Amino acid sequence: MEKSSFTSMCGGGDITGCRFSLSVMCGDYADKILKAVGQVDTRKVWSGTDALSTIYRGERVHVVDAARGFFVYANDRETHMIMEATFSKGCPGDADADYALGCGDTRLNPTDQSFDVLGKISFYPLGVPDYMEHIGHVVAMAREKNLYRATSHYATELHGDVNALFAYFDEILAYAEQRIAHYVLQVTLSVNSPTKTQNRGNLS
Amino acid sequence: MEKSSFTSMCGGGDITGCRFSLSVMCGDYADKILKAVGQVDTRKVWSGTDALSTIYRGERVHVVDAARGFFVYANDRETHMIMEATFSKGCPGDADADYALGCGDTRLNPTDQSFDVLGKISFYPLGVPDYMEHIGHVVAMAREKNLYRATSHYATELHGDVNALFAYFDEILAYAEQRIAHYVLQVTLSVNSPTKTQNRGNLS
Repeated sequence: MEKSSFTSMCGGGDITGCRFSLSVMCGDYADKILKAVGQVDTRKVWSGTDALSTIYRGERVHVVDAARGFFVYANDRETHMIMEATFSKGCPGDADADYALGCGDTRLNPTDQSFDVLGKISFYPLGVPDYMEHIGHVVAMAREKNLYRATSHYATELHGDVNALFAYFDEILAYAEQRIAHYVLQVTLSVNSPTKTQNRGNLS
Repeated sequence: MEKSSFTSMCGGGDITGCRFSLSVMCGDYADKILKAVGQVDTRKVWSGTDALSTIYRGERVHVVDAARGFFVYANDRETHMIMEATFSKGCPGDADADYALGCGDTRLNPTDQSFDVLGKISFYPLGVPDYMEHIGHVVAMAREKNLYRATSHYATELHGDVNALFAYFDEILAYAEQRIAHYVLQVTLSVNSPTKTQNRGNLS
């Protein structure tokens, strides 16, 4: 399966994207990042890099799967690291290029690893007057899934297992693609932080 | 001047906020972050921390000034570091608390340092149908100021001097507060990266 053939092979503009970067708090951060990048199975997404981020584009399910795969491969269970990710779909200025579509439902990256993640999200539906209702729905979804940790200024804090969190992001994006033409989901994920708040007991 | 007196002293809800975190790619990252946090003159903003971020809230000019001060103090001109910042104003769900207002125009943090920064921004006007026009205006402002580097998926890349960049962010927020009820400016700033793209010659 050649990635380069997707762009010409698949028409349409139903492109979900994820722009992400990983900050690794140690001296050999570049090696850790490159190793994780190389481990992800990206055959079902278009992938590219620019000066600050890696970008995956394609079908929602595979974009989320590849982003999760990257974070799981990067985590060495020891070094403090933070992933910052921007999921987005529907920008009127988006290029009709750089994507993979028509790749089926089967996810390519393994889900057999489990670890605790502290995170936050901000959800931005664009161009619609009822955006606060959509944001409220997304926060309520986190509560239902026991991923909600706290509401802070400009973000909702989350805590949970890595697979549950990415499944939640996938559900947010599935909710949004049914209802909103253009939206952005900004995500921060932190693991192995030495600060006490990372593992504080009461998360309700 | 006591910060704690501001909240009760100043009425109104004209609160700009900045939620930010700094990732420092070295083993003693926590010391570097705490040192920078302690050096910022925050007398004209409310400041708080949660599990993932530091938050400044108050008048636009002082929030931007304090955020810039933090980044300048943090940069040791050697270690790769990335600041992720969310500027925001006007959320209908915002708390009428945790802010400093009525503090005059004089900025408290010094602007005598200069260094190159690679960055990106995404601007999200919320609840308005003409949001793409505002985004276009903000990108055009970057071009006029020679801070524009490239358009990538989901973000606009920037490059320039640290003071020019923060002055640009202040101008974006000034533009927005005149025209948009609720908006978010997502910013990423990178210094001392070992990758070639950090200092590539042709930035036009």
